[in-house]
Amino acid sequence: MKLQFQLEKKEKNTKARLGSFIYNGKTYETPMFMPVGTQATVKTLSPEEIKEIKAGIILSNTYHLWLRPGEDIVKKAGGLHKFMNYDGPILTDSGGYQVFSLAKNKKKDITEEGVFFKSHIDGQKLLLTPELSIEIQNKLDSDIAMSFDECPPAKADYEYLRKSVERTLRWAKRGKSVHQNNNQMLFGIVQGGPYQDLRELSAKETVKLDFDGYSVGGVANDNESKEDMYKAIDYSVPYLPENKLRYLMGIGEPIDLIEGVIRGIDLFDCVSPTRLARHGHALTKFGKINLKNAKYKEDFTPICEFCDCYACKNYTKSYLRHLIVSEETFGSRLLSIHNIRFLVHLMEEIRESIKKDNLLMFRDEFVKNYYGEKYEQK
Amino acid sequence: MKLQFQLEKKEKNTKARLGSFIYNGKTYETPMFMPVGTQATVKTLSPEEIKEIKAGIILSNTYHLWLRPGEDIVKKAGGLHKFMNYDGPILTDSGGYQVFSLAKNKKKDITEEGVFFKSHIDGQKLLLTPELSIEIQNKLDSDIAMSFDECPPAKADYEYLRKSVERTLRWAKRGKSVHQNNNQMLFGIVQGGPYQDLRELSAKETVKLDFDGYSVGGVANDNESKEDMYKAIDYSVPYLPENKLRYLMGIGEPIDLIEGVIRGIDLFDCVSPTRLARHGHALTKFGKINLKNAKYKEDFTPICEFCDCYACKNYTKSYLRHLIVSEETFGSRLLSIHNIRFLVHLMEEIRESIKKDNLLMFRDEFVKNYYGEKYEQK
Repeated sequence: MKLQFQLEKKEKNTKARLGSFIYNGKTYETPMFMPVGTQATVKTLSPEEIKEIKAGIILSNTYHLWLRPGEDIVKKAGGLHKFMNYDGPILTDSGGYQVFSLAKNKKKDITEEGVFFKSHIDGQKLLLTPELSIEIQNKLDSDIAMSFDECPPAKADYEYLRKSVERTLRWAKRGKSVHQNNNQMLFGIVQGGPYQDLRELSAKETVKLDFDGYSVGGVANDNESKEDMYKAIDYSVPYLPENKLRYLMGIGEPIDLIEGVIRGIDLFDCVSPTRLARHGHALTKFGKINLKNAKYKEDFTPICEFCDCYACKNYTKSYLRHLIVSEETFGSRLLSIHNIRFLVHLMEEIRESIKKDNLLMFRDEFVKNYYGEKYEQK
Repeated sequence: MKLQFQLEKKEKNTKARLGSFIYNGKTYETPMFMPVGTQATVKTLSPEEIKEIKAGIILSNTYHLWLRPGEDIVKKAGGLHKFMNYDGPILTDSGGYQVFSLAKNKKKDITEEGVFFKSHIDGQKLLLTPELSIEIQNKLDSDIAMSFDECPPAKADYEYLRKSVERTLRWAKRGKSVHQNNNQMLFGIVQGGPYQDLRELSAKETVKLDFDGYSVGGVANDNESKEDMYKAIDYSVPYLPENKLRYLMGIGEPIDLIEGVIRGIDLFDCVSPTRLARHGHALTKFGKINLKNAKYKEDFTPICEFCDCYACKNYTKSYLRHLIVSEETFGSRLLSIHNIRFLVHLMEEIRESIKKDNLLMFRDEFVKNYYGEKYEQK
């Protein structure tokens, strides 16, 4: 059965919302941060660890699973949940972002039919279309599928974005027409860059197609400014129905999670907590720390004294530093646990603040601690 | 308090022995296979996972911990157990093997004082002596420390080995004289290659120094023949006291574990289960399999149907293959769990066979399954 999203409460001073849905008998609350399990595994972690850090939905990548092991193998395994042994909710993206970003330095060709590109694994020439993306996701049997959208390059001009919005709408319609998995939600994606009229057009027309939820896309490009990201949300959200989930794709910086929620977003995903872990970085209340730093050599305290994660309850910065410096994967595993838990816990605090209608106060306090006094609010 | 080894039973038809010791209130049985945690971590695994697969003693490397993070940091952390959060028994090697093997292609200089060599990390010139090795191990506070021995190259001639045995004896004496950790056993090492008289000399003289246990060394060189290994054991064991542990260093091939036990060995260690895991190999009753093989693409059965490990209870060969091929560390983590569990379980079966006095029958049955009918017993 499809997830049923329930809007529980709106915060008094912002557009923030508290919501919930039930999955496999368990109630999940939004706003929620979704860790990324690109290749049917959240890097270094077991499904039990994902649950222990109280993560809810995890995201997996259609593009990667299509190329390897192939959606037919996942289907034969009984779907993605069974394949990877995760009985929590799973969202799959459309592959749209990957064919743009991973084929970046390779030849890619965007046509009305779809995107021709070369595989990042073996260079094979491939075509991903809106229909194929949905068909793959149907077979993967995720709980939430995403429409295949055109991801415009960063700093694309108005004219490019206008055409891209129109194409994304045609692709959304084509994808929806082949969607056949009744247990799977299908989300539409709003594009339009930082332009109010394009976002309005994209949002209104996408909503007309009546999706199960909506995503604000085109904000996760590396050289996108925060200002443009916030504009993209502000210009899209007013046209999205209140009773459906709203998902800001590819965003995981703490301040952006808070600002996204304030602007009416329910779901976020990002590879940042696991990627930072692999580079030896840990998220703390007082900002990001680099455990490779020599000052942690003899620091026999946990990353965060008040963190309830397995890494903080059992290991010191000194040991974590040793593992990271020695390139032991148990180090990135422990930091992945901590970093994901940090963001999941941040969302818990955000939800608490929505319940108490003091989200803006929470933001100001968080920002002061995390970014320091000098941080300038956008 | 030091481990107290208790000899429980001798097998009727071989030199195999069943033994036990109590550690932290828990009883452990020998013969036992010890997984290797080179850098204060059994690669990819948590201490809880090590316990779940019922491993007992783990081995950690003095050489590595001396260079990084340094024994003083481990001591400040409260010793190796606290540093790595493992409350089971830990054995540290002497660093003798590493200064020979890791400095292999670099300049090394063996003198009476010790071994001068260059660090494999930064090329720094260092000197490891018998005294320093013991002092480092005292600080690491492992439960079993090893004497610093000279590891002769493979195929060393008789004259080289004779001198090496004599030097190893002098080094053993020097190391023992500085050993100051009353909670730590100290083992002596028998050398002498495949020569009966040298093994006899080495064993008798080492035993005169009265160590807490004894190791048969010089058998883990890559191009050592099985025949020479079995000779080394057969020529050493008769001179070792019955009431003390006997440890065959660096050996983990299943047949060698069985043959070692048959010849009177109690402890084994090897990096093979975790190394094989990283290369996508899994140990099974019917031999080693390579999960990268295309035939496992759609194999939705576990590695071993009857294996009780976490990997076999929850994941299919198809998924494991996908993880390995995709270079996801969760794959080597799952295979490490399985491979170590396989060897730990093999030791459980060996102990069961000692209890029933049918170890030779067990060996023949195991060999038939694992190596096939054509395997020729040495």
